[in-house]
Amino acid sequence: MVIIGIDIGGTSIKGAAVRNNSQILGQFVSEVIKGESSDDTINRLIKNVLEFIPTIPIDSRELCGIGIGVPGSINTTTGYVNFSPNLKWYDVPLKKMMEDATHLPVKITNDANAAGLGEAHFGSGKQFKDVIVLTLGTGVGGAIILDHKLFEGNEGKAAEMGHMVIELDGRPCGCGRNGCLESYASATALINDTKHAMEENKDSLLWKFAEGDINKVNGKTPFDAAKAGDKVANEVINNYVKYLGEGILNYCNIFRPNAVIISGGISKQGDYLFDKLKEYCAKWDYGYPNTPVPEILPAVLGYESGMVGAACLFF
Amino acid sequence: MVIIGIDIGGTSIKGAAVRNNSQILGQFVSEVIKGESSDDTINRLIKNVLEFIPTIPIDSRELCGIGIGVPGSINTTTGYVNFSPNLKWYDVPLKKMMEDATHLPVKITNDANAAGLGEAHFGSGKQFKDVIVLTLGTGVGGAIILDHKLFEGNEGKAAEMGHMVIELDGRPCGCGRNGCLESYASATALINDTKHAMEENKDSLLWKFAEGDINKVNGKTPFDAAKAGDKVANEVINNYVKYLGEGILNYCNIFRPNAVIISGGISKQGDYLFDKLKEYCAKWDYGYPNTPVPEILPAVLGYESGMVGAACLFF
Repeated sequence: MVIIGIDIGGTSIKGAAVRNNSQILGQFVSEVIKGESSDDTINRLIKNVLEFIPTIPIDSRELCGIGIGVPGSINTTTGYVNFSPNLKWYDVPLKKMMEDATHLPVKITNDANAAGLGEAHFGSGKQFKDVIVLTLGTGVGGAIILDHKLFEGNEGKAAEMGHMVIELDGRPCGCGRNGCLESYASATALINDTKHAMEENKDSLLWKFAEGDINKVNGKTPFDAAKAGDKVANEVINNYVKYLGEGILNYCNIFRPNAVIISGGISKQGDYLFDKLKEYCAKWDYGYPNTPVPEILPAVLGYESGMVGAACLFF
Repeated sequence: MVIIGIDIGGTSIKGAAVRNNSQILGQFVSEVIKGESSDDTINRLIKNVLEFIPTIPIDSRELCGIGIGVPGSINTTTGYVNFSPNLKWYDVPLKKMMEDATHLPVKITNDANAAGLGEAHFGSGKQFKDVIVLTLGTGVGGAIILDHKLFEGNEGKAAEMGHMVIELDGRPCGCGRNGCLESYASATALINDTKHAMEENKDSLLWKFAEGDINKVNGKTPFDAAKAGDKVANEVINNYVKYLGEGILNYCNIFRPNAVIISGGISKQGDYLFDKLKEYCAKWDYGYPNTPVPEILPAVLGYESGMVGAACLFF
């Protein structure tokens, strides 16, 4: 079985023909043009797909569907994209438009779900049945994979992994509540915490790694400074590990999954981060002796996880 | 199909023959004898079951299995009860013992899962696909029902619904962590908060409803006083609604279920509690317009939810 997986991003659209053994048989890329209407973008995408299909080196009967990941709020029951803030799409019948044009079955999901499903099927999670994916970026996203399948909830609106309050009346969150995991464990939160620590500690090595410019702080800065022995940076990292660790532990107690996979730029910190995370979670893990401890693993797929994962909606 | 559902409690064991339309065809009860070994208790239970089977008014071929709910940590892979603090059972091969004696297939789960599954199948949740059950008692327990099936996680150790931290470094919890939902939203927590408020407010009506004796406070006391117009009690209730509401909202964002069912003695407070809870959750619910809002409902099954739910392991 071969599926075309499509990952619609804020600036580009990536597509691939994916066999159900994860083999990628061909790819295409197109841009998202700023200010373009949803109709125009989708019609351009349809044209790309129709041109792409004959180039896939397979018997055409092997091509069984199209999976699409979209950044925003999706209704999996109706196949509509309800709202995509990045694309400025409102109530767009994406599934129907693509099905009408290609005469193939189409499934849509949000981009975080797609990327998480790809990672669970063909990345770090491939040997596991139940997997939680947490993506640390501007916010905290992720996906829930149970019994090897994406769990999407009513109308596909579950798995808002970052919007779990871990601190009553805590930091304000974009979702309207206060104290969400996202406000503590996103890359944005880590950068803000780093800047705050820098303002309080003018002699911290953090300034050196930010080239003396607080606006140059990124998610790597506190790790670099902590590895160089800076105490202030070390405290920032330890707090971050605690915030993220509490989120992971909450998900372990709810799902007792086989694995928790961490993706996003911060997951590139490797053992330095994961050793601390595992130590924190092992210390506070719930349960009587012999309760299985979930693996905590970095994601291994790169930019292709979104399109591969969109194809996995059919696998 | 008829299944024998068994609910092992701290003081009694209740069993029922349950048809898959929820009809109860007969029941038995036996006691848990304090100090008795696990072998003795289970052998007594087996004797009860073997005597009960011929009394069920069905063709014997209709009897297809036995489901058992046990208070404690269960391994659904091995069929062992790993540990039951109430029963003082350690690594007991309950499934095998019952199967060997009855020659019927046996499934076991923990008691909170069983009761939640019963409520989801045949109680408040019967029309819904995805249901979260929160049981407010000494602790906060519950169950996760997805696509009409119990979700149990690795070895059956998921759904520790009360052990989700909602307050970093918050109140100490029996699980070893701090700030768990259980420490804020259990009946125990409500009673403690009520007592604390009474100590600070000697003229509160709470004292009247507790007959002047702080040791007589129960989960009903603050509701009674709040309904009578007591400001202190009203504040206790509003805080409780906030704590429980934040837990419910977290579960809504994770699962976007069709319904959240609240069980346990506190759920008997009816509209007074549920109107407040719904108002709180509606105010802070996540999502763009048209995101489906989960129903928040009281449980309707009584003491039989555990045995009916244990039978539901087969339905």
